[in-house]
Amino acid sequence: MDKKYLEEYVGKMGKLLEKRGEIEKIIDSAMALGKKNLFLVGIGGTIAVMRPFEQFFKKMSDAQVYAENAAMLITTGNRHLGKDSVCFFMSDSGNTKEIIEAIHYCKERGAVTIASLGAENSPIEKLVDYSVVNLNKDSYSSDADYYMNYMFFSYYLYKRGEFPQYEKFIANLNRLPVALAQVKEQADEQGKDYAPKYLDDNYHIFTAGGDIWGEVYCYAMCVLEEMQWIRTKSVHAADFFHGTLELVDDNTHVVLVKGEDESRPLADRIEAFCKKYTKKFTVYDTKDYALEGIDKDIRGMFAPIVVTCALGRISPHLQEVTGHDLSYRRYYKKVEY
Amino acid sequence: MDKKYLEEYVGKMGKLLEKRGEIEKIIDSAMALGKKNLFLVGIGGTIAVMRPFEQFFKKMSDAQVYAENAAMLITTGNRHLGKDSVCFFMSDSGNTKEIIEAIHYCKERGAVTIASLGAENSPIEKLVDYSVVNLNKDSYSSDADYYMNYMFFSYYLYKRGEFPQYEKFIANLNRLPVALAQVKEQADEQGKDYAPKYLDDNYHIFTAGGDIWGEVYCYAMCVLEEMQWIRTKSVHAADFFHGTLELVDDNTHVVLVKGEDESRPLADRIEAFCKKYTKKFTVYDTKDYALEGIDKDIRGMFAPIVVTCALGRISPHLQEVTGHDLSYRRYYKKVEY
Repeated sequence: MDKKYLEEYVGKMGKLLEKRGEIEKIIDSAMALGKKNLFLVGIGGTIAVMRPFEQFFKKMSDAQVYAENAAMLITTGNRHLGKDSVCFFMSDSGNTKEIIEAIHYCKERGAVTIASLGAENSPIEKLVDYSVVNLNKDSYSSDADYYMNYMFFSYYLYKRGEFPQYEKFIANLNRLPVALAQVKEQADEQGKDYAPKYLDDNYHIFTAGGDIWGEVYCYAMCVLEEMQWIRTKSVHAADFFHGTLELVDDNTHVVLVKGEDESRPLADRIEAFCKKYTKKFTVYDTKDYALEGIDKDIRGMFAPIVVTCALGRISPHLQEVTGHDLSYRRYYKKVEY
Repeated sequence: MDKKYLEEYVGKMGKLLEKRGEIEKIIDSAMALGKKNLFLVGIGGTIAVMRPFEQFFKKMSDAQVYAENAAMLITTGNRHLGKDSVCFFMSDSGNTKEIIEAIHYCKERGAVTIASLGAENSPIEKLVDYSVVNLNKDSYSSDADYYMNYMFFSYYLYKRGEFPQYEKFIANLNRLPVALAQVKEQADEQGKDYAPKYLDDNYHIFTAGGDIWGEVYCYAMCVLEEMQWIRTKSVHAADFFHGTLELVDDNTHVVLVKGEDESRPLADRIEAFCKKYTKKFTVYDTKDYALEGIDKDIRGMFAPIVVTCALGRISPHLQEVTGHDLSYRRYYKKVEY
């Protein structure tokens, strides 16, 4: 794999991690207001990147945390949203339609608003109470979103007294870009293998559970469907045996992604089943990556970003064998809808 | 459509609605304990049937309500679950493995447990603090689950002072079986049309938003995938334009289901798009059913069960044209997994 790309990755992500001081100050200010609950508001890829943190809060925190799809929030609403709420948003362009509407919606109800943005001087930057702008994302937008979220929410948990290992976690986070560059290199070989092997299939079942589910769901929809027009079904590991299993036969490709949290036995069960009942079976397991320099008791929390890095190395090889440019769209930014 | 089936439906659902006194007593007892939050715990079809109520609570209530997949709850947990929780379960057989484990899990943490069951003298009946057994479900299990949930949760909201229209709602609920028999009759004609028309496609995109999403997700997975081995993709209406739209072409069948809640504009947007970009497009709209005898300001809340009745009339016709028996399985109850 291209060494220059990996060096750049490590450099740019390192730069991004320097935003931590800024992020801590925002959280300090927002929490000083004595707000009661936290809303993670995203759409498409950005809600997917928040799902792991919803899981972390569920396990680690007594805080009331709500992960909401922006389009649903502004139509249906949530009675817990109000002057006691801190609302967190992400946008690469700083100009996402539904996110702008959601920020207005939250502000009208008295909530404090924070945004993590990928562009300077954007409409969203002007709109929110607090924002961090990161201009070093380029083609690593999903990775960058994760680094930002890890900084924001680990500090939020720490400030609540629910994450005493914060300093250790940050030391590990600072070592993560190097470890993930190795993941990318290793996964690139898998991607090379993956792409041609399943070229003839235009339907792939993706399944995963726990804190990596959002990322796997997103990869199938935002990459395979949107960028390659490849049909997928994403099914949560907890639902797999409640319907989708009956589709499995020798001609149905199942991609199982395994992380390292407490839900791993659900994935193990699917693995045992698929090994018996289909020959077209791909497993991505975050445990297969060494993550050198990362402590054993911390590495599990990085599973979602490891999955991003690993699955992200399928796409370039798919592009090569399909000849379908990853940036080509039929509708998005081409027609009004 | 078979008149006898419809008469039986009205009779049996009427019988089921007589359980209301029993249900109110259970809620009275559970709420007298001063519990703080409510967990709706299901798996596969039973969590899908709880999703609409999660939406209702979000809009109508200040209560902390968590809808949890049983398999995830017992692995990852939820810090809000404890002695201040009321946990609600459903099981047709009264013997669902994950539900039994989840009940143990909740009881060990001091929660009060309630179950709505489809069989007498079951392991779950013996395990929970409170249960209602309904033996009139037969082949209407999804419908029956809804009637039970409508009774449980409308009374719960009423007792919290958040549903003053309770009496009116119940009067409407009592008239619902007759109205839904008409829905089934009307939808049966649509189903007849649907089945052969899309027989050649082995891939259907299902999309819906708001309070009917859970039901649509469930129909695709628990009926088309499990009972007909037909490939599907279910995508929430709020996510449709964030990836899946790029799959749409003249050869891709999209099924849009429209309900009557605040999220309807999301469905309208998809409808306008699909009318332009695919010729294989099916719309199910709950507004197309008269629901005679049901008040205008109440009917919207019944959209999820209307969807069950409407989509449920595709399956028998699919069986006819595919020759694939709806009760036939490759794996479920045939092999160990």
